[in-house]
Amino acid sequence: MLNISQRGKQMPPSPIRKLVPFAEAAKKKGIKVYHLNIGQPDIETPPAILDAVRHADIKVLEYSHSAGNESYRRKLVQYYKKVGIDVSHEQIIITTGGSEAIMFGFFTCLNPGDEVIIPEPFYANYNGFACAAGVNVVPITAHIENGFGLPPITEFEKAISTKTKAIIICSPNNPTGYLYSREEMQALKEICIKYNLYLFSDEAYREFGYDGDYVSAMHLKGLEEHVVLMDTISKRYSACGARLGAFVTKNKAVYDAAMKFAQARLSPPGLAQIMGEAAVDLPSSYFDEPKAEYLSRRNLLVSKLNAMPGVFCPIPGGAFYAIARLPIDDCDKFCQWLLEDFSYNNQTVMLAPATGFYGTPGLGKNEVRLAYVLTLQSINAAMDCLEKALEQYPGRVITEKAEALTAK
Amino acid sequence: MLNISQRGKQMPPSPIRKLVPFAEAAKKKGIKVYHLNIGQPDIETPPAILDAVRHADIKVLEYSHSAGNESYRRKLVQYYKKVGIDVSHEQIIITTGGSEAIMFGFFTCLNPGDEVIIPEPFYANYNGFACAAGVNVVPITAHIENGFGLPPITEFEKAISTKTKAIIICSPNNPTGYLYSREEMQALKEICIKYNLYLFSDEAYREFGYDGDYVSAMHLKGLEEHVVLMDTISKRYSACGARLGAFVTKNKAVYDAAMKFAQARLSPPGLAQIMGEAAVDLPSSYFDEPKAEYLSRRNLLVSKLNAMPGVFCPIPGGAFYAIARLPIDDCDKFCQWLLEDFSYNNQTVMLAPATGFYGTPGLGKNEVRLAYVLTLQSINAAMDCLEKALEQYPGRVITEKAEALTAK
Repeated sequence: MLNISQRGKQMPPSPIRKLVPFAEAAKKKGIKVYHLNIGQPDIETPPAILDAVRHADIKVLEYSHSAGNESYRRKLVQYYKKVGIDVSHEQIIITTGGSEAIMFGFFTCLNPGDEVIIPEPFYANYNGFACAAGVNVVPITAHIENGFGLPPITEFEKAISTKTKAIIICSPNNPTGYLYSREEMQALKEICIKYNLYLFSDEAYREFGYDGDYVSAMHLKGLEEHVVLMDTISKRYSACGARLGAFVTKNKAVYDAAMKFAQARLSPPGLAQIMGEAAVDLPSSYFDEPKAEYLSRRNLLVSKLNAMPGVFCPIPGGAFYAIARLPIDDCDKFCQWLLEDFSYNNQTVMLAPATGFYGTPGLGKNEVRLAYVLTLQSINAAMDCLEKALEQYPGRVITEKAEALTAK
Repeated sequence: MLNISQRGKQMPPSPIRKLVPFAEAAKKKGIKVYHLNIGQPDIETPPAILDAVRHADIKVLEYSHSAGNESYRRKLVQYYKKVGIDVSHEQIIITTGGSEAIMFGFFTCLNPGDEVIIPEPFYANYNGFACAAGVNVVPITAHIENGFGLPPITEFEKAISTKTKAIIICSPNNPTGYLYSREEMQALKEICIKYNLYLFSDEAYREFGYDGDYVSAMHLKGLEEHVVLMDTISKRYSACGARLGAFVTKNKAVYDAAMKFAQARLSPPGLAQIMGEAAVDLPSSYFDEPKAEYLSRRNLLVSKLNAMPGVFCPIPGGAFYAIARLPIDDCDKFCQWLLEDFSYNNQTVMLAPATGFYGTPGLGKNEVRLAYVLTLQSINAAMDCLEKALEQYPGRVITEKAEALTAK
């Protein structure tokens, strides 16, 4: 018999997408489903960047340079300058989404059997890339009680072994929305230098910080050789489908090795690079509107959640996600139940069970991630559904129990 | 000190692109360089498929399904039917170029330490994906004397070990242009069944077969569970920069595992999928013109080559590549010399040294790959350059020596 590979077996299915068949079934029954489960913004893609593609004079859609068009990389240098990041176009590799940048990081910097430390809950697809690369993820738990701030550095030190090669951070964070402070970034810098670790910095949500200063890993003086920046235009310009990201590092050896992976896949998407290049020319005021919109949505969502009995949701400082603790026995069951067995005024809500974002088995059982990527009106309706659902859910537990579960 | 990974070190640089700096230097000196080194067709991308993107009504460029838009996959089913391949849309995963399809194949079907057999010379980037996946490539030599036909099955049997999990073929072939016959495909089928091997079939050049029948691995009855088809629109519609391919298999376990890798990277490029969908609606007569054009170019190129003293080029049955044996000491030196030290009427030619396409060290030293992706006029001029260059090249060897080198 033909067998698939071990990593093919071990590869985790997407925790965000596994409920999709239940959502499809609900829709077939005529139920409206509010999708708070996935970070697909409803904000319009800036028409100017789509127009750049529409008006591009293309005779032959050729391979670009494996690092991406030089013209786009030079434009990105200008963009990074605006956000206080000083890099050259020869320190940037344009990638197929942030995903490929993450993959290049794993394959370039880590050997099979090496370990990467990631504060949990974390973006679930890091698991997939780690599995593909044969790398072991060592999670360090951040807690909902302090809004998912950086776990104490002593926890990192306990987790560091001779196999540890890197730390991954994401700020503003997916799935928690937490925005790391300058002090937290400084603490990460110190530990990376002390233990000689790479710092992989996923900055997909850079523009969406609401409270406090935004600090990029690239702002940390003295850490230049350690930092690999993983970037994407997906969320910044609401262009997830473009699949356009960037791998940025000042470490020449890392850059040169990553370029070989980039050459093997020839080039990043061509039409998307035209969009990306045009995006740099959008006025800086472009972000004012989506940012204000996300901020209003955050405020509505969090206040609605915290007004529900037994629910706790810390205020996320950035991105467009929040994790809430619910008075439930099991978030996987609850999220499925919402789609399979519940409706209110013929509507229901789709959430992401938080278990999928934890590396430690058993954690996050009474938490869900909510992406506030819908209009205020939809968020209102979705929260009404959630409130009713929590009243009716057979697996409801009393608040103290829920808190005890989290503290466990 | 921070170290890069072992695979980062071992990852081969692109043999096609390593001469680029020399070409750039030649151009700076004002020399015109004919690029026969890379499979970037000059054929116009069908305007209709670019127009489909221009006229697409996009408000938010969203993630597509991880397997690609269902509408595109259903369209592709129609396309495959036209070429005698019977698959459903649930056996297709849309990929970021053929490259990603190859990568999914390696990661899904092979473990680190496993072996894949590939007739050499072969597409050099298979090495890169094998390296990333920790898979060992076992080359079996095809010979220029018989036009790079499939090596005898006895050679495969000698190379098969307990670690062997797959064979990769590419027909019509890059870099040789060889088109496998029905008998050769049948022989491959038998060996895959006998030894329980996957057959990875890279069919990037399907439409460009000039002599004899085209046989897809998907046409082989009884091999359904073994075949993974790796496809791309890059060459078919001269749309290399779109980065759009497909991973196709009837093996459900392989499909399901590959889907997990597909989910980890979220989705394939969105704008390119619009192009791909429109491409299926091009009339079948669309291929008549590019195919006739490539055929004329092939005939011109091969006759010009064979008319040069000491040069031998078998007639390739498909794709748009040819490998020629030249009366030279070392193709790497020669190709660099062409760019660095030679010009004729202020022109020169860029070729791909064949050494990069062999897995066995030392083979291909007096061979080069030529991609006939330029107009007849340019091919003529490029061949004039090559003829003059061979007269002047200090490392020229006499014909018998060259033949002896190949036979070695």
